[in-house]
Amino acid sequence: MKKCQTDNITLLADNNYIDIMVQEICSTYEDVKGINHIEGFNLPSETEVENILHQLIEIIFPGYSGKKSLSLQSIKYNVGETLSFVYTELSDQIMRALKYNCAMDYCDSCDIPSLTKDATKALIGGLAKIRNTMKLDIAAAFDGDPAAKSLDEIILSYPGVKAITIQRIAHILYRKNVPLIPRMLCEYSHRETGIDIHPGAHLGEAIFIDHGTGVVIGETAVIGDNVKIYQGVTLGALSFPKDDCGHIIKGAKRHPTIEENVTIYAGATILGDIVIGKDSIIGGNVWITETMAPRSKVTMRAPELRIKRK
Amino acid sequence: MKKCQTDNITLLADNNYIDIMVQEICSTYEDVKGINHIEGFNLPSETEVENILHQLIEIIFPGYSGKKSLSLQSIKYNVGETLSFVYTELSDQIMRALKYNCAMDYCDSCDIPSLTKDATKALIGGLAKIRNTMKLDIAAAFDGDPAAKSLDEIILSYPGVKAITIQRIAHILYRKNVPLIPRMLCEYSHRETGIDIHPGAHLGEAIFIDHGTGVVIGETAVIGDNVKIYQGVTLGALSFPKDDCGHIIKGAKRHPTIEENVTIYAGATILGDIVIGKDSIIGGNVWITETMAPRSKVTMRAPELRIKRK
Amino acid sequence: MKKCQTDNITLLADNNYIDIMVQEICSTYEDVKGINHIEGFNLPSETEVENILHQLIEIIFPGYSGKKSLSLQSIKYNVGETLSFVYTELSDQIMRALKYNCAMDYCDSCDIPSLTKDATKALIGGLAKIRNTMKLDIAAAFDGDPAAKSLDEIILSYPGVKAITIQRIAHILYRKNVPLIPRMLCEYSHRETGIDIHPGAHLGEAIFIDHGTGVVIGETAVIGDNVKIYQGVTLGALSFPKDDCGHIIKGAKRHPTIEENVTIYAGATILGDIVIGKDSIIGGNVWITETMAPRSKVTMRAPELRIKRK
Amino acid sequence: MKKCQTDNITLLADNNYIDIMVQEICSTYEDVKGINHIEGFNLPSETEVENILHQLIEIIFPGYSGKKSLSLQSIKYNVGETLSFVYTELSDQIMRALKYNCAMDYCDSCDIPSLTKDATKALIGGLAKIRNTMKLDIAAAFDGDPAAKSLDEIILSYPGVKAITIQRIAHILYRKNVPLIPRMLCEYSHRETGIDIHPGAHLGEAIFIDHGTGVVIGETAVIGDNVKIYQGVTLGALSFPKDDCGHIIKGAKRHPTIEENVTIYAGATILGDIVIGKDSIIGGNVWITETMAPRSKVTMRAPELRIKRK
Amino acid sequence: MKKCQTDNITLLADNNYIDIMVQEICSTYEDVKGINHIEGFNLPSETEVENILHQLIEIIFPGYSGKKSLSLQSIKYNVGETLSFVYTELSDQIMRALKYNCAMDYCDSCDIPSLTKDATKALIGGLAKIRNTMKLDIAAAFDGDPAAKSLDEIILSYPGVKAITIQRIAHILYRKNVPLIPRMLCEYSHRETGIDIHPGAHLGEAIFIDHGTGVVIGETAVIGDNVKIYQGVTLGALSFPKDDCGHIIKGAKRHPTIEENVTIYAGATILGDIVIGKDSIIGGNVWITETMAPRSKVTMRAPELRIKRK
Amino acid sequence: MKKCQTDNITLLADNNYIDIMVQEICSTYEDVKGINHIEGFNLPSETEVENILHQLIEIIFPGYSGKKSLSLQSIKYNVGETLSFVYTELSDQIMRALKYNCAMDYCDSCDIPSLTKDATKALIGGLAKIRNTMKLDIAAAFDGDPAAKSLDEIILSYPGVKAITIQRIAHILYRKNVPLIPRMLCEYSHRETGIDIHPGAHLGEAIFIDHGTGVVIGETAVIGDNVKIYQGVTLGALSFPKDDCGHIIKGAKRHPTIEENVTIYAGATILGDIVIGKDSIIGGNVWITETMAPRSKVTMRAPELRIKRK
Repeated sequence: MKKCQTDNITLLADNNYIDIMVQEICSTYEDVKGINHIEGFNLPSETEVENILHQLIEIIFPGYSGKKSLSLQSIKYNVGETLSFVYTELSDQIMRALKYNCAMDYCDSCDIPSLTKDATKALIGGLAKIRNTMKLDIAAAFDGDPAAKSLDEIILSYPGVKAITIQRIAHILYRKNVPLIPRMLCEYSHRETGIDIHPGAHLGEAIFIDHGTGVVIGETAVIGDNVKIYQGVTLGALSFPKDDCGHIIKGAKRHPTIEENVTIYAGATILGDIVIGKDSIIGGNVWITETMAPRSKVTMRAPELRIKRK
Repeated sequence: MKKCQTDNITLLADNNYIDIMVQEICSTYEDVKGINHIEGFNLPSETEVENILHQLIEIIFPGYSGKKSLSLQSIKYNVGETLSFVYTELSDQIMRALKYNCAMDYCDSCDIPSLTKDATKALIGGLAKIRNTMKLDIAAAFDGDPAAKSLDEIILSYPGVKAITIQRIAHILYRKNVPLIPRMLCEYSHRETGIDIHPGAHLGEAIFIDHGTGVVIGETAVIGDNVKIYQGVTLGALSFPKDDCGHIIKGAKRHPTIEENVTIYAGATILGDIVIGKDSIIGGNVWITETMAPRSKVTMRAPELRIKRK
Repeated sequence: MKKCQTDNITLLADNNYIDIMVQEICSTYEDVKGINHIEGFNLPSETEVENILHQLIEIIFPGYSGKKSLSLQSIKYNVGETLSFVYTELSDQIMRALKYNCAMDYCDSCDIPSLTKDATKALIGGLAKIRNTMKLDIAAAFDGDPAAKSLDEIILSYPGVKAITIQRIAHILYRKNVPLIPRMLCEYSHRETGIDIHPGAHLGEAIFIDHGTGVVIGETAVIGDNVKIYQGVTLGALSFPKDDCGHIIKGAKRHPTIEENVTIYAGATILGDIVIGKDSIIGGNVWITETMAPRSKVTMRAPELRIKRK
Repeated sequence: MKKCQTDNITLLADNNYIDIMVQEICSTYEDVKGINHIEGFNLPSETEVENILHQLIEIIFPGYSGKKSLSLQSIKYNVGETLSFVYTELSDQIMRALKYNCAMDYCDSCDIPSLTKDATKALIGGLAKIRNTMKLDIAAAFDGDPAAKSLDEIILSYPGVKAITIQRIAHILYRKNVPLIPRMLCEYSHRETGIDIHPGAHLGEAIFIDHGTGVVIGETAVIGDNVKIYQGVTLGALSFPKDDCGHIIKGAKRHPTIEENVTIYAGATILGDIVIGKDSIIGGNVWITETMAPRSKVTMRAPELRIKRK
Repeated sequence: MKKCQTDNITLLADNNYIDIMVQEICSTYEDVKGINHIEGFNLPSETEVENILHQLIEIIFPGYSGKKSLSLQSIKYNVGETLSFVYTELSDQIMRALKYNCAMDYCDSCDIPSLTKDATKALIGGLAKIRNTMKLDIAAAFDGDPAAKSLDEIILSYPGVKAITIQRIAHILYRKNVPLIPRMLCEYSHRETGIDIHPGAHLGEAIFIDHGTGVVIGETAVIGDNVKIYQGVTLGALSFPKDDCGHIIKGAKRHPTIEENVTIYAGATILGDIVIGKDSIIGGNVWITETMAPRSKVTMRAPELRIKRK
Repeated sequence: MKKCQTDNITLLADNNYIDIMVQEICSTYEDVKGINHIEGFNLPSETEVENILHQLIEIIFPGYSGKKSLSLQSIKYNVGETLSFVYTELSDQIMRALKYNCAMDYCDSCDIPSLTKDATKALIGGLAKIRNTMKLDIAAAFDGDPAAKSLDEIILSYPGVKAITIQRIAHILYRKNVPLIPRMLCEYSHRETGIDIHPGAHLGEAIFIDHGTGVVIGETAVIGDNVKIYQGVTLGALSFPKDDCGHIIKGAKRHPTIEENVTIYAGATILGDIVIGKDSIIGGNVWITETMAPRSKVTMRAPELRIKRK
């Protein structure tokens, strides 16, 4: 019987094995229109985009990361330094994304520098407003969760707050038609929080998402003020209209509108371009595909449980 | 038609633009009671708290991270060095959290050093017990999952084990009324595993959470020994009692008690301060808001499926 | 009343406290068969395994990470350098895993170097095929999601693509009976994407998983070509057959087979070794435990909603 | 004959070997007055001190490190952010050093916070002056070295400029009687440049040190404006006066004074509290222990060379 | 008497202190022609230049850094990957340096891309030759130093070898009139080794510099084959010819020419545009300013030692 | 006239240029006996060796790096952890070095594991003695330098102390015939301090090297107790005896012996296998090639200075 023999043996590849593999793989790169990004230097960089995001969050929630100790006396220097950095870096990433788009569309008529400046300024100019909105979001979380002990606890540890902050940032770029970056931001948030809000969704003020894992909010969803959403809620599309060629029509309104003061409990699924009227309560696990009038209280007639003794 | 013109153009901000933005943002910081943490140096640091956590996990599962090669001969030095480090760092973070709390409450009567020492020692003194409990948890995972090939595989790659380990650590600090840190620990775990267990929940021994994504276990939940929980299970609150002013009453028991030997299948939702009696089996996707006697086997009378041929 | 007194006090541990704790914890290490990995140097390293994975993904989607700028002229050097590195490192990790297995089984008859070489070559030799398959997956995502703007957006930001890529890699090692590493790879993916696909599952081509959080696909599941899966779908086991001693029988087929062109909407639960026939549509939240014929369209007769006005 | 046998052998230490070594080494720590720094947390940190130094150099030579791209528009934010950081960190390090000194001297009468503030402000307040002086130093380097192609080349690559910049910084702290830190700064410079200028030396303006390796300038040396110094020059002490107990008297003037417009060529050694009068030229390798009048041109009567043909 | 009072005192700067300092320092930046590099993005980066250098050294001495394990089978991929990287990065740094030069000279007639390509190719094309030359240098070190135990020891630990390798690289760029970078390379070497060889010096083959600290070799020095140089040797300029305006004339030959097979012992100083004829031996500490015929053996008639008994 | 034209031009290498360069360079690797280290994995790693050195210095001067805060209570864990780490890592590096040597010598009779253990234990077992010796060295520095303010300043910032510490470590390995590593350690020291002491030199106690730049101490030098050495001192070889084939004889005693209580001032050169008798004083810049009796006071009859007025 052959003994375990693992030592003293160098596991080098056979001669030419690597060479053959290199050729085989490189031959799959020849189709340049495929899933390669060779000879193309200008995709936005995931690392840079996330770095910019962290800088922006430092401005929105100053002092919480603990990376710098801030004083009122010197805070203006921190903000100024960060904005200068973000302005330059964000412009660079946005320009890459816009050029990418033009290259994809064989477009030659965009004034990319001007569009870049416009989008960059829209985001930086929107930070003060995001801060004000986030104050309301956080107050909503404090009021809505008996487990919340303080505003600071919410900022430090609620994934819903993180997801909403990032979506508000991404949404500004989405509105300015910047490609790729908004989605990269929201997927970063999805990865960190389990909450998947498309950058296209329109969010009102004082939104609270609790626990959040599994929440999906689609591109054309509209959410009014003071809406509360629990884990596992889907605001999705019912079906996708297709054009004459059978291709999905992109961009049409296909997700729900949630009016103000609505609460949606865990696991509810709301599909299609319908409206949930204001002040409604949507119970856990319900499945709704039709518009609900204001002040509706919708619960599942729970399927009869079969309870047996073992 | 204007050509794409992206080169040779420096995208510097207009003069004074940054200055104006800095002023606008800094003016939103003036409300010190808001979502700023300026002039305040003592919040626990997320980075430090996670670092301490990793050290504690090294002690609970020695050798698995592969960062150090351990021998029985020298393990006591590793443990001693780690405990010395953790003692100092953890004391520092706990003291920050306790001071923060006193500052929030305008309290001036706490003996913070003594409370800090007490909480720190409770955690370090609890590590041996956590190890013993985790042995049972891991054995439960091995017995409960046909896909599990070995104990080591479970320690290396089961998110449920990671989530429970971290919650057991956080729970000790929660019991000692340390603010902020327990929640930061559990949100770290939530982010890594998709499993959201509040640090306040009381967990028995030999708990197994499989797959885990979307599991939510609330602050006042109590889980007995030998309980098995699958992905998407919620042990939540049904409603939040409010005080006369309409504010949610914080702290009251509002989540379920799960007795020993209960299995809860994927997607089940169990809400309110109810009891699931021992040896019960709760089927997938069921929705339970009332106490179940021991040995109950609860399944959903599955809603009639409509099956059509296309 | 005692004042808050936190300064000037060094929070050193009492004499001998650390010594006692070290002894207490080390005494729990004495049980070598337990959850220790002391005196054992050869577990695969999580850090190394993830590093290898990132290298492989660079080869499958060259240029997207933005870490290197690639030209057609020099791409062969990049691929060759990466393959050489991966070959060596992967061999090392696989050999550790195989030796680990032999040690666990008191086996002394395996030709580990030969098995290592075989598994390493299987993975490297499979990369070109994975690339071709991923092209189909990404085209499926583009066709299936109206929110998708370009193939590059999908590669850069769709968690489903990431999860499937990693599973395809892990599956090759699983087929070669490499222990530990396949599961480590898939748990990395689970952590990053919220999608939990066991490395044992067999996936066809042009698979699209949208949003993905909470998806669970079991070890013996089989998924045909052109299958679309939404968030929260479980392809699980119904029950675990046990042997005469009451131990779960490991390895038996216990998860569904999904034939080609099936769409499974969000939250559907499909359990047991059943077949969903080709061209079927499985509606959201349905609960299926029996085989469905081809071209079935299965929807939940939605539980009656109770709608009240507040 | 015994074969080379290196594989399969674990080189673990004998049982207890490490334990014995630990005891042996720890017993040498018992002498607390010795070369231990245990139970003492407040020595200035080499890492922090060097970090502060790099920040200060960024302010003195803005833009050269290439770490940040600076615009006139935003430079004030960079400077403000850096000064705020340096103020806090430098205060911390200086306070450690001052406390250390008091502890060494059993002093209990220093107003350390006030001394700290004073020293910190002296350094920050001296930066503008250092910049102005460095302009003259760099102009002197450009005028004095035919190999210098531009001012920027000098800033980027002349070790003499680096050494003088650091000494000017350290000298301010030396003058404020800050212990340890000035010497740490100058030794950093010594390590990087091979130029050893004591922080106590008094340097005029427009000083140029070329090549620099081996230059030693003592604590009580005084160097006037427009002095040029080449590699290997020593401005040292001739002998050390001792007190009645035979202990060296510390602090007395014991190094040379070099008046303005003096050039000292490579390898010259000038020892003792003497004066080299202004406009003098000191030749290479000379050895001087006596005062030289102004406008002296001192050369070595070169020792006769013995030249033979081989 | 005032007590040491260091705790509980926050060492914040006075209001406006930082503001005043920022203004004061920024006002020194207004002189744009001075020692600022604001609004200028294109200086070569020290970090990048050193990174490129380390890559080049990996090619010249493959395998010694231990960063990659190389096999003959895969070495071509490593070299190709490195060259591709270096080509791109080096082009970028050289172009920055050339643009910088044009900007300094208000030049608008250079074909910078062509000059960049030319210089980059000169360096990459020179690597094979540098390797061949370094083989001779290392053999010379082995033959010349009784303490040298092996060629590998010399490559791993002889500062002279490092300094010569770097100078050979820098010299190629110097010959192509690339500004800044050659000097940055040689100052890196100076910092690491204490050996200061100007990039302009012309070095023959089989050069050995032992110990090396304090060696200075000037811009227009020429060193023949098989020359041995010990620590502290200066090959410098005697005086600098000036033009009618009193400015030093830059670029003229002003350093010695050392012919082949010359040995120069420690501390020797050889100054001016003179020739040391082949096969000569220059003794330690000698001071030479005149041409020496071939086969000269020059020693210092040692200054009479005064030896007293204490 | 052609304009500066640097934008919009991609500086890609010509087709095949990189390929040709790769071939050219790889062809120089074919001579395997040359300056390649391909197919050889076992050279000691510079990074690892320096890491081990830093750990050892932490043990010799505990607490000075400021990386860990040490208490008497927990110091044994720090030492134990460090020794365990060093034992393993050092064994690994020493074994590589010994194997390397055997490979070079085609030796097949060494018991490498035993030699490795022996050398590792010699070093670890020597640490307590090194600590005791360093106490004397530091006291000597304090007594000998009027600029020294405290023992801690000396430990923190005197290059001579660093160089001697490292040499004492390297010397132990040198005595055990470990190749490569001792020289790598001493060259690290040389790079950091400018002091070049060969690991073979024998150093007594209470040695003080002040400033240190340019000091060279040869392999077979012997230095007695209480010796003081200033910058630029060489203890070198006069000539190298050759064997009949004209090859330098390696290993013979060829450097000076310095007896106790000798002081050697800056720039002195002492060459050959001579003795400087105890209690002697060697003046600056002297050149000695013959034995000096005890209590000699040797000064240079300074070459007559020529002093002119300009």
